[in-house]
Amino acid sequence: MIKQYLLSPGPTAVPERVMLRMAHPMIHHRTPQFSAIFAETKEMLEQLFQTRNDALILSSSGTGAMEAALINLCAPGDTIIYVNGGKFGERWGKIAETHGILTVELKVEWGSAVAVADVETALIANPHAKAVFVQASETATTTEHPIREIAALTATRDHCVTVVDAITALGVIDMPMDAWGLDVVISGSQKALMLPPGLAMIALSDKAWEMVGANKGCHSFYFDLVTERKNQQKGKDTTAWTPAASLIIGLNEVLKMMFEEGLDNLYARHSLLAEATRAGVQALGMKLVSNVPAASATGAFIPEAVDGVAFFKYLRDKMGVTFAGGQDHLSGKIIRIAHLGYYDVFDVVIALSAIEIALDRFGYPVVMGAGVAAAQKVLANRFAKV
Amino acid sequence: MIKQYLLSPGPTAVPERVMLRMAHPMIHHRTPQFSAIFAETKEMLEQLFQTRNDALILSSSGTGAMEAALINLCAPGDTIIYVNGGKFGERWGKIAETHGILTVELKVEWGSAVAVADVETALIANPHAKAVFVQASETATTTEHPIREIAALTATRDHCVTVVDAITALGVIDMPMDAWGLDVVISGSQKALMLPPGLAMIALSDKAWEMVGANKGCHSFYFDLVTERKNQQKGKDTTAWTPAASLIIGLNEVLKMMFEEGLDNLYARHSLLAEATRAGVQALGMKLVSNVPAASATGAFIPEAVDGVAFFKYLRDKMGVTFAGGQDHLSGKIIRIAHLGYYDVFDVVIALSAIEIALDRFGYPVVMGAGVAAAQKVLANRFAKV
Repeated sequence: MIKQYLLSPGPTAVPERVMLRMAHPMIHHRTPQFSAIFAETKEMLEQLFQTRNDALILSSSGTGAMEAALINLCAPGDTIIYVNGGKFGERWGKIAETHGILTVELKVEWGSAVAVADVETALIANPHAKAVFVQASETATTTEHPIREIAALTATRDHCVTVVDAITALGVIDMPMDAWGLDVVISGSQKALMLPPGLAMIALSDKAWEMVGANKGCHSFYFDLVTERKNQQKGKDTTAWTPAASLIIGLNEVLKMMFEEGLDNLYARHSLLAEATRAGVQALGMKLVSNVPAASATGAFIPEAVDGVAFFKYLRDKMGVTFAGGQDHLSGKIIRIAHLGYYDVFDVVIALSAIEIALDRFGYPVVMGAGVAAAQKVLANRFAKV
Repeated sequence: MIKQYLLSPGPTAVPERVMLRMAHPMIHHRTPQFSAIFAETKEMLEQLFQTRNDALILSSSGTGAMEAALINLCAPGDTIIYVNGGKFGERWGKIAETHGILTVELKVEWGSAVAVADVETALIANPHAKAVFVQASETATTTEHPIREIAALTATRDHCVTVVDAITALGVIDMPMDAWGLDVVISGSQKALMLPPGLAMIALSDKAWEMVGANKGCHSFYFDLVTERKNQQKGKDTTAWTPAASLIIGLNEVLKMMFEEGLDNLYARHSLLAEATRAGVQALGMKLVSNVPAASATGAFIPEAVDGVAFFKYLRDKMGVTFAGGQDHLSGKIIRIAHLGYYDVFDVVIALSAIEIALDRFGYPVVMGAGVAAAQKVLANRFAKV
């Protein structure tokens, strides 16, 4: 018997309440019954995005919505600027290449945030760039980029928008789309939205919709956002193509949970868990991967004396605790601990306890309880003093 | 959002696998389909009891099986000896009184085990006593009684048997019924058997069945063990009265899990978790309630400076961690931490982490991480060194 704990930054744990809601008998998606759920869900989603525009629900992974953003905004031969500070930033370039869109890459050292000045320089050097593509939180390095400041740069430029992959940020940090002037915001179901994978969400500003309307270049049948908006608009409350209905019903439940908790409490919880996790791993002598660490997940370097790949597998296969490892040149060197979505105090405790025990089992001279103790001092603040 | 953790010694956590099995569509209990499940379940149950006799399944709580034992073995005016070292020991006396059965009470200080010599003295003083009733593990005080030694005393006496309430012991400690000469063993579903409440199990030795056959005194329609045995015997594979079918189907799954783990591993796990929990609470300066502590749950005194009732409620209502408190004169003074059934390493870590944080919130000068650290040093042994 090995109990399983999923502590990776996507997929994340799905609450029992959501699993049970999704286990109800299937309903047909072209019915008033489903449309009522859809309309309610979309309205809550727009409150979470903090936008008065449509937040569209796509039945795809987050990558699908990333591609939708690129091809609806840009035509072949157009130029975009993208921030590449990790695996997900890199993906903007790969998608653009597929569609013949020209790219200006802002390469950022893994673990660092892009400098706003570098984005500005690129915008000045490329006055015809259609957009800046950036992650709110680069999951590969657990780093937050300055999306608000980047959006302020494009706001002053005609025909140039900021596109934010918020797949590990929406529902984690307060990022008011309209107030900050974020033109396109993308999310996915399997992160802070506490669902299985299979849904993506995308919202566009008026400026971005104008650009989509003017774009005659790229085409997609499945990811045609204009068609989606026509179907998903209030009153129609349906989708262009067959939706992943059980996931949308699950999303309805998830959003109710989020609003029952309250968005301020939700953000404060994520911030506290992140702070506690950082305190915990640092108390174990493990260095943080990021110098602008995200609230969604914490990356930390595994001690060099320990075989990182074996360490990760041991935790998963022998101890039942699944973290994420590192990618590319960080493979085998780091561990990424999730604290976005359905996580609370004792998930952080489990994460640190598991790492401590595993370090001990690998013969590393760990001070048992040191990481947990440091985390607990922060976590205690989640509960009122008596 | 408060995640819930059930760390009380009954009900205990039900594994997802078992919940899902019980959620299958209802089947009728008078069918070959159910009888096949029943027969397989009963056979596994007898392996767990370690008996070649029938282990009968009753649709009642454990108290029902305690009463069944008393009234099937004894008639009004008969004398029994019972060990009262806590709330559950006390219950033997109350049931006997209801049926006009005379009692010799062996009162034991809460937290202590009965002395075998005292049982022997009582048996000598009461040569016509029909039975000694005792808990294998007294849940109120988290104490184990010397059932093997008591059974050895009655084994040499005609018409006198040992009746063991093993409700928090079967599936926790190795207690081979036939090999140890335990005449009656009783269990319940909501403890180590990892099920919701609603089922009890009872097995009788040949000697006990002879006594039941000779007993013409007490009567019960529902708890008539002779009728149950006739129905539950191999080949008939049914129950006298409508059974709690979904729980029996759940029991089938539970027993499969237990045998997949292996009984030796199962007992070793419980022993390790108990050792770790004791190390943890003692490292926090909390004294154990028992001087013969059980493998099922650990009782520890809450520091006197802390309001014990408020402490218990704070953990449950503010932190989402449900322990058991103390009963009668121990109410508000102790906390009982379960580690029987579907519990493993990180449940112990959560228990100690929660207690540490709660102590801190109550202003008690706790050394954060001290309990977790002490527990982890023991818990690490659950995993092989690399």
